[in-house]
Amino acid sequence: MPGPRHNPHDGAGPEPGEAGARGASLNGQASAASSPLGLHRVLEPSGVLPQAAWRLDAKAAIWPDEVRVAVTRLNLDAASFRQLREAHDGNPDKVRAAVLNIVGTRGKMQNPVTGSGGMLTGTVAEVGPDSPLGLAVGDKIATLVSLSLTPLVITDGLAGWDGKSEQVPCEGHAILFGRSIAAKLPDDLPAELALSVMDVCGAPALTHRVVAACEARQPVVAIIGAAGKSGSLSAAAARHAGAARIIGVVPHEAEAQLLRGAAAATDGQPGLVDEVVIADARNPVLVSRAIQKAGGPADVTVVCVDVPGCEGGAILATAQGGTVIFFSMATSFTAAALGAEGVAADVTMLVGNGYVPGHAELALDLIRAQPSVRGLFQRRIDEHSSPNHGE
Amino acid sequence: MPGPRHNPHDGAGPEPGEAGARGASLNGQASAASSPLGLHRVLEPSGVLPQAAWRLDAKAAIWPDEVRVAVTRLNLDAASFRQLREAHDGNPDKVRAAVLNIVGTRGKMQNPVTGSGGMLTGTVAEVGPDSPLGLAVGDKIATLVSLSLTPLVITDGLAGWDGKSEQVPCEGHAILFGRSIAAKLPDDLPAELALSVMDVCGAPALTHRVVAACEARQPVVAIIGAAGKSGSLSAAAARHAGAARIIGVVPHEAEAQLLRGAAAATDGQPGLVDEVVIADARNPVLVSRAIQKAGGPADVTVVCVDVPGCEGGAILATAQGGTVIFFSMATSFTAAALGAEGVAADVTMLVGNGYVPGHAELALDLIRAQPSVRGLFQRRIDEHSSPNHGE
Repeated sequence: MPGPRHNPHDGAGPEPGEAGARGASLNGQASAASSPLGLHRVLEPSGVLPQAAWRLDAKAAIWPDEVRVAVTRLNLDAASFRQLREAHDGNPDKVRAAVLNIVGTRGKMQNPVTGSGGMLTGTVAEVGPDSPLGLAVGDKIATLVSLSLTPLVITDGLAGWDGKSEQVPCEGHAILFGRSIAAKLPDDLPAELALSVMDVCGAPALTHRVVAACEARQPVVAIIGAAGKSGSLSAAAARHAGAARIIGVVPHEAEAQLLRGAAAATDGQPGLVDEVVIADARNPVLVSRAIQKAGGPADVTVVCVDVPGCEGGAILATAQGGTVIFFSMATSFTAAALGAEGVAADVTMLVGNGYVPGHAELALDLIRAQPSVRGLFQRRIDEHSSPNHGE
Repeated sequence: MPGPRHNPHDGAGPEPGEAGARGASLNGQASAASSPLGLHRVLEPSGVLPQAAWRLDAKAAIWPDEVRVAVTRLNLDAASFRQLREAHDGNPDKVRAAVLNIVGTRGKMQNPVTGSGGMLTGTVAEVGPDSPLGLAVGDKIATLVSLSLTPLVITDGLAGWDGKSEQVPCEGHAILFGRSIAAKLPDDLPAELALSVMDVCGAPALTHRVVAACEARQPVVAIIGAAGKSGSLSAAAARHAGAARIIGVVPHEAEAQLLRGAAAATDGQPGLVDEVVIADARNPVLVSRAIQKAGGPADVTVVCVDVPGCEGGAILATAQGGTVIFFSMATSFTAAALGAEGVAADVTMLVGNGYVPGHAELALDLIRAQPSVRGLFQRRIDEHSSPNHGE
């Protein structure tokens, strides 16, 4: 029976040889001891991916292609934290106990109600000899795969967490697989800002790729939700990729003012967007006309607002032959598919994949180069932290 | 106040001048009398697209860019017909009354519970001078936009319909807008086969486009649900576009036998697929390994099975840099987005747009050229019609 190449396991839970053999039989590869997807860490139900698993094996001992991280902080997904707080009437002790119970039971911080996780920061504690992630012991990192699939053990009882914010100081360990994604925290940016940027870094990376590949000579790009985190970074990425005209759509005057501030060209930098448009993205007729008036239709439209019902407007605002990128998790697949067909729109519609190689680096570079985007992020961070700390 | 260029209206309902003016004020175009999207036909709520409207103006008089069709048959969406039959205990008179009531109330056949419509066939009765659809009076056509957005009046009380099948012989009229899609029914194919092909023609058209643009020299294409209507046509389209290897995935032996029959090369034609694989598409690990063994990973994976939970398998079965096209209406946007991120899959994920220019012609040509695909379709039609006619 093939075992892992080194065997540092503690004997608790299934033996690594068993897990390796299970993986091997599924793989049909006799020498496979672990799976880059983490299949060998899935305890139940067997055969599913770690994200779909009810329970993971979170033991500290690593397989040859894994990395163990000493955790310093969990960043719970906003939907998950809201659910926990509401379910426990905002009682911090109960919220803390609930998180401990989830992680203790499931071997990962995946809220069973919302299904979502979050991300974590920590320091690399051990790197397996076959790990492809390029990390070294002592690196300070953030995970860019969800906590919902990351093996996790909490060892401090969350004693340092007040239970009132999704920022959870924490001691314990987490495991990264061969195909996990982690990014080193930069030395030159505050950790909270860097995390906030990395949380949405898939959007600017895919926007950059699509705009750079755009066949239009002077691509017009519309960003729906341009004053938000993913929206403002996507606008910066579109500019970097050669967009000739960027139309930023926001829902009301307050956001418009924020965006106009960022739109002003300063220090020889071009402004973040060329036009600021106020429109309700859920009204296809109005939003598409507003974009048309501002220089549209768009060759590339990027949907960055987490509000249902924005599919039709994005489709109508896009030129025939153009592309819509849906980053909003509120996107309805059927509304997009039927909406395009219903108006004979020959547009390419992309599901916003959160992973594009080099996405964290690109987003951090954009933040460094664009003080206006950095300002928008800092403002969101300040707004976000005050109500949590104040309640 | 700008009115339509000719004014053939009957005086019932709002005057066309009013509708034109309403359109004009929204458009900011003083001369616009009608909208290619049909906004001028929306009675309530105002400002939404015809598909989202509760009630349309279905009057027979046409605006200059419209076409009126003398209806011969409605083809109700399967989900809609099932809902109607179940809600009325299969009583044909009540089902008939329900359809008449919906069309009479809403001015379109959009089931208020399912939201879906269907398609219709008929003969072109009048063509407005500005219609861009290229139709002539007397053309026998099928609409390729949904009944859920098509103004419709029924004049025969559905006297010719037994209320037992989604095929509804019918007299009345329907209206096509400037941006509607209609296809002439071919003379050389039975109407039922042609309709069945046109119903899914977006899938082969987009598959053809993606495979033809694929950067891999010898593209490997996996079709999940390859024995079905959209799946088999997509396989034929992939071959036509230059796929070097086509892997057809089916859920069980019965489908595999159907597909193997179609896979045999005959009459100098290449077989429909090169490999037939039996796998549960909802199990990401098993389906991706099965595709791997059959010559994968795929450069292009096409999901054509209307079963939830196929996102992960399709993503894992696809090569880095490859493309997944989701045609299944059971696709979950979030499962696709998070699934790709969770396994660091750099794959392009497309929402299967049902509209690609030339889609009906391409699909009909594939059916003409590929007797094996035609056989699969005929078999589905025969299977499908017998239970309806037999109950």
